[in-house]
Amino acid sequence: MFNRVTIIGLGLIGGSIGLALRREKMAKQIAGYDLGQGVSERARKIGAIDDAYESVADAVSGSELVILATPVGAVRTLLQAIAPVLTQGTVVTDVSSTKSQVISWAEEFLPPTISFVGGHPMAGKEVSGVEVADPDLFKDCIYCLTPTTRTRSTAVSKVAALVETLGARVRFLEPAEHDGLVAGVSHLPFLVSTTLMSTVADDPTWGDAALLASSGFRDTTRLAAGNPEMYRDICLTNSAAIVRWLDTYVAKLSDLRDQIAMHDRNIDEDFTKAQQQRQQWQVTQQSGK
Amino acid sequence: MFNRVTIIGLGLIGGSIGLALRREKMAKQIAGYDLGQGVSERARKIGAIDDAYESVADAVSGSELVILATPVGAVRTLLQAIAPVLTQGTVVTDVSSTKSQVISWAEEFLPPTISFVGGHPMAGKEVSGVEVADPDLFKDCIYCLTPTTRTRSTAVSKVAALVETLGARVRFLEPAEHDGLVAGVSHLPFLVSTTLMSTVADDPTWGDAALLASSGFRDTTRLAAGNPEMYRDICLTNSAAIVRWLDTYVAKLSDLRDQIAMHDRNIDEDFTKAQQQRQQWQVTQQSGK
Repeated sequence: MFNRVTIIGLGLIGGSIGLALRREKMAKQIAGYDLGQGVSERARKIGAIDDAYESVADAVSGSELVILATPVGAVRTLLQAIAPVLTQGTVVTDVSSTKSQVISWAEEFLPPTISFVGGHPMAGKEVSGVEVADPDLFKDCIYCLTPTTRTRSTAVSKVAALVETLGARVRFLEPAEHDGLVAGVSHLPFLVSTTLMSTVADDPTWGDAALLASSGFRDTTRLAAGNPEMYRDICLTNSAAIVRWLDTYVAKLSDLRDQIAMHDRNIDEDFTKAQQQRQQWQVTQQSGK
Repeated sequence: MFNRVTIIGLGLIGGSIGLALRREKMAKQIAGYDLGQGVSERARKIGAIDDAYESVADAVSGSELVILATPVGAVRTLLQAIAPVLTQGTVVTDVSSTKSQVISWAEEFLPPTISFVGGHPMAGKEVSGVEVADPDLFKDCIYCLTPTTRTRSTAVSKVAALVETLGARVRFLEPAEHDGLVAGVSHLPFLVSTTLMSTVADDPTWGDAALLASSGFRDTTRLAAGNPEMYRDICLTNSAAIVRWLDTYVAKLSDLRDQIAMHDRNIDEDFTKAQQQRQQWQVTQQSGK
């Protein structure tokens, strides 16, 4: 059990972590801070935190574990802000979608007495805000942790205990490895989806086409509804890996374009292979649950 | 009410049309034919047709309305096969995803006494087969009809009556216009989705990445599970329109790639625009229902 845990950023993820910690009685006190007007007060009312703070410094003071549950763009400034006031031995973790950049900031700003363990829960919803927080959000999800050779094992154990409390499954990865993998299965799908949306909707025929768009279009463009600032931060902090995936993707799509232009009758071989890959992935997904 | 209607191809679409026609008592007799072993017999058992035929010629003989509910690749051969045996005045319609090519086949093979009205219901499911047929499949859906200047108005009225029976809403379009629109909102999303699946799954890191792939990946790759032969036929019969959309899409994605490579901080402007387009489309969708 933790004595005092601080959650900074009380949206869907931060709020859900707070609710789970409370329900599992894993912290004597949960302190919370959020920049947004009235957010930490609402988080307190729904039971995601015990105490709402007006200042980051007060919120993290004396805490054993500090969880940064903000978009990755806010992490740099937050690390700078809390570095001078953290209690010796505090463990800091985050939940953001890219890890290498966050870890280099942690190494730059945090004193050697503070341990940082990068984290990334593979969970989320289309909706956001503490109002939709759910203590079961992370149940059976993969939760990546990216300790480095400089991370103390006691710090890793504390964050792994947090993950276990959430009902999620820890997966240890190198930060760069993590960033390469999620660039493929998470960041690339967003870029593919948002570009599909704008390609079709920027066209003069969109007024007529919109009426014909059906469930396939709906699913393929769902990610385009995601938070623009969050994805901007992801692009800024994981640029190299994303560009590598985009280059592979565009090369494949250009080959397909040429096959279609040439009326290649064997084009279904590619479709069949992708269909099988999709079916196999679904089987793995279901058996993993 | 129709005297005799024939449905050729008793899958999800053909079976669902049959069930709806029966329920609404819109046909005195529904004849059915399917190439697949035992399919027409199963269709008869679930009440999608009244009589199962062993030969296409017998199935269409004496029918007022013939519905070709097969993949587009089979339509050419079917039109050639039924042309000599159709009763004078018969109206023929289809349900396939591309229209210009189908209409040119109809004009090539059908005698002048037979009217052809191209059709395309904007409905479907991930699953296929007569077993999942549903008389409400087309309820509130858009159903495109693409008559040409050569189509008799009486023939259009008959097919429009069929659409109304299905609970769908008719939308009249020029064949080429239809093909351009669905290339954007239906065929492009499939190609985007199947290429995403193969890009990620062909990579040596896929074994690890597959475990991190979550709901966003699942939705964006859902169409990749679609029928390969159906999409091959679509690519073969709508090549020009699809290639135009792919070129626009690849150009946009390449611009985005360059912005990401340059760490462009204003990249969220594009994401915000696409987010708004997606939200507006959803509002239209919901109000249209």
